[in-house]
Amino acid sequence: MPERTVFYISDGTGITAETLGSAILAQFDFTPRHVRLPFTDSVDKAHQAARQINHAAETEGKRPIVFATLVNAEVLAVLSESRAMLLDMFCAFVQPLEQELGLKSRHRVGRFSDVSKSQSYRERIDAINFSLAHDDGQSNRDLASADAILIGVSRSGKTPTSLYLSMQYGLKIANYPLIPEDFERQQLPPAIVQYKKKLFGLTIAPDRLAEIRAERRPGSHYAALENCRYEVAEAETLMRQSSIRWLSTTTKSIEEIATTILQEIRPERLSY
Amino acid sequence: MPERTVFYISDGTGITAETLGSAILAQFDFTPRHVRLPFTDSVDKAHQAARQINHAAETEGKRPIVFATLVNAEVLAVLSESRAMLLDMFCAFVQPLEQELGLKSRHRVGRFSDVSKSQSYRERIDAINFSLAHDDGQSNRDLASADAILIGVSRSGKTPTSLYLSMQYGLKIANYPLIPEDFERQQLPPAIVQYKKKLFGLTIAPDRLAEIRAERRPGSHYAALENCRYEVAEAETLMRQSSIRWLSTTTKSIEEIATTILQEIRPERLSY
Repeated sequence: MPERTVFYISDGTGITAETLGSAILAQFDFTPRHVRLPFTDSVDKAHQAARQINHAAETEGKRPIVFATLVNAEVLAVLSESRAMLLDMFCAFVQPLEQELGLKSRHRVGRFSDVSKSQSYRERIDAINFSLAHDDGQSNRDLASADAILIGVSRSGKTPTSLYLSMQYGLKIANYPLIPEDFERQQLPPAIVQYKKKLFGLTIAPDRLAEIRAERRPGSHYAALENCRYEVAEAETLMRQSSIRWLSTTTKSIEEIATTILQEIRPERLSY
Repeated sequence: MPERTVFYISDGTGITAETLGSAILAQFDFTPRHVRLPFTDSVDKAHQAARQINHAAETEGKRPIVFATLVNAEVLAVLSESRAMLLDMFCAFVQPLEQELGLKSRHRVGRFSDVSKSQSYRERIDAINFSLAHDDGQSNRDLASADAILIGVSRSGKTPTSLYLSMQYGLKIANYPLIPEDFERQQLPPAIVQYKKKLFGLTIAPDRLAEIRAERRPGSHYAALENCRYEVAEAETLMRQSSIRWLSTTTKSIEEIATTILQEIRPERLSY
């Protein structure tokens, strides 16, 4: 039974509060109950939130932890009087920054508000559509406009990584499977060989690959350890011979793979 | 010309630092240069980062802003001596939490480390695969295990929202287009009618829809304002008659749409 509640409260989506809160809580051996209260953007809603907090405090006999990103000062004031340990991320950093920059902050709710018509938001949606249309070598159209083309054997992590990079950074990422035909020819797939500078390889430990493939097709040749060993060895040889940058995804999360690729490809549009 | 540099520095991916930093900077009318320095996990790399910071300080005549999430105390010490305004998010919140919880923090780098084999990470990858396989009504298989099924006319925002929910929260989200045949029959698509409790509708202002569709197929009947008006009106009627919850995506970002849906569906596995 979790014995303490963590609230994520924001006048926007609360995604920032939850991202930072989760990262901080990961530093502790502590399994709380989570309550998300996004769009807490009025004094009424603040009082409602405060009631929830006080109720948890009473039931659990410990004050709840509140990770907040609140632009609205009145909402913040109401929550400050609740029985919580209030960790407001804006308070902590916005005021010192106002001094440093010599600028007043906008007190604008949510970094996503009204973005839906902005240029960069449209580019992000376009990027997601591009990555979807170019998943798993589905299309060779317009590969010239890809920011990167991920290659690797089936189930090496190409699809989630492509989608993450487009969703998070607005990058157009195609991905192309390396298949037994490529290994027999000992050449990169013809459609992508001209885009060698955009290529980035993903590889994976054969035993991990066999596990992943077995979940999908247990007992198949496709999932057999021996076949996985063969495919991975051939793919790595091919990437090495073609001087393509690559990394192993075996123990990495999507976020770590994506960040590493970003470091390597340094797309111009992300003002690296 | 940007005249000040903002650094995102972490011993992990730096995604948390960048998420919070961007949200905070969105409060200012300020367009800095961005530099990401993920995986700064050794004293050597810290000195390298400090050199970059000091170089920017010199060139720009203003000290750079550094948003950091650093677990490694030695790395933090090196950066503290650079010519930056250092905003470390862990410092600000981990110490007070140690006191509050009566626990020592782990000083563990990165909330994503070693997650690739964890149960919740696998579920997240499975969710992404599910959402991809069930994009745009591609598959009716296993809809019973969907956390939600998004419905709406073509280009109302179903695909990016589905992918975001699976990527960010590990939810299995199918999406199903409402098409002219459904409007003629005045009924929900047969494949999904039995899952009415899982359905969530997305709608959009017809003029915005016409704009979005025109980017893809300019001058088509599909993109014509009159047709968009017809489809949206029919879709809304259908959703209203079937008592399906729905929202308008017109001025909302993916994050706002996703957060709102999450509030409504409150999936059990997210311990809401």
